[in-house]
Amino acid sequence: MRPEALDWSVENCTIARAMTILGEKWTFVVLRDVFAGIRRFDDMRQRTGIPRQVLANRLAMLVDNGVLRRVPYREPGARPRHEYRLTDKGFDLYPMLAAVAEWGNRYLADAEGPPVAIVHRDCGAEVHPVMRCGAGHDALKPREVATAPGTGTHRR
Amino acid sequence: MRPEALDWSVENCTIARAMTILGEKWTFVVLRDVFAGIRRFDDMRQRTGIPRQVLANRLAMLVDNGVLRRVPYREPGARPRHEYRLTDKGFDLYPMLAAVAEWGNRYLADAEGPPVAIVHRDCGAEVHPVMRCGAGHDALKPREVATAPGTGTHRR
Repeated sequence: MRPEALDWSVENCTIARAMTILGEKWTFVVLRDVFAGIRRFDDMRQRTGIPRQVLANRLAMLVDNGVLRRVPYREPGARPRHEYRLTDKGFDLYPMLAAVAEWGNRYLADAEGPPVAIVHRDCGAEVHPVMRCGAGHDALKPREVATAPGTGTHRR
Repeated sequence: MRPEALDWSVENCTIARAMTILGEKWTFVVLRDVFAGIRRFDDMRQRTGIPRQVLANRLAMLVDNGVLRRVPYREPGARPRHEYRLTDKGFDLYPMLAAVAEWGNRYLADAEGPPVAIVHRDCGAEVHPVMRCGAGHDALKPREVATAPGTGTHRR
């Protein structure tokens, strides 16, 4: 059985484009920290152990791609610096972060449980990603979904 | 304001562990292809353009981590080979793939739209990731969720 997807072009694949921005462990670790409220270069560096130049490159790339923005601040007696905050485009990565955390927590956590929970601000209950279709079918299981050609599919 | 997360250790971070497995563009492109039903080495190589050795390494790593499994097959007149299929652990990456595709489609698609849709097998409607909390609050927006310590949080 020849898979139908072999006839689809991948040159405009938005998953590959997204992973060109995101597909690197340190990039994701930086985003995890920003989502946890850690916005300053030295805090990130100390917490993550990412080499200084690598961290600077990842942050610049995320700013260039509109995921983070630089906001100036000044500590008393220090020179002006900037911190990093999520843009709306960056905040829209939360479902992806939640999905990575869910999978990691299920398969890769220590026996005591995962170190971080993603929670609903208002009520404090844990947040889980759910797949729902446009016809309203809810909590779809992985084997209930499939890939199909989109409006931008090209034949190879 | 010193972010509270600075006091949490990251040594048991399940997001970092997940991205050690997944955090690389080619790994995600391989998974995209397997989710689209493309299971054979030569099909993946031709479709993605990944160098042969890189593809072999990524597939072996995904097998070692229990995301893919090898299944033997034999074409008439050819030597036995194997193809790659998702395990349950691999299928459980579908919410993450859906979240990556959703974000890529929103921000990185060409004007004609994205090349791939993720659909509900039964009804064909498009699938979207939704964040829901354990208390039943549904369709949470990114700014309505936050990170908090989990059961495995250690002080630094």
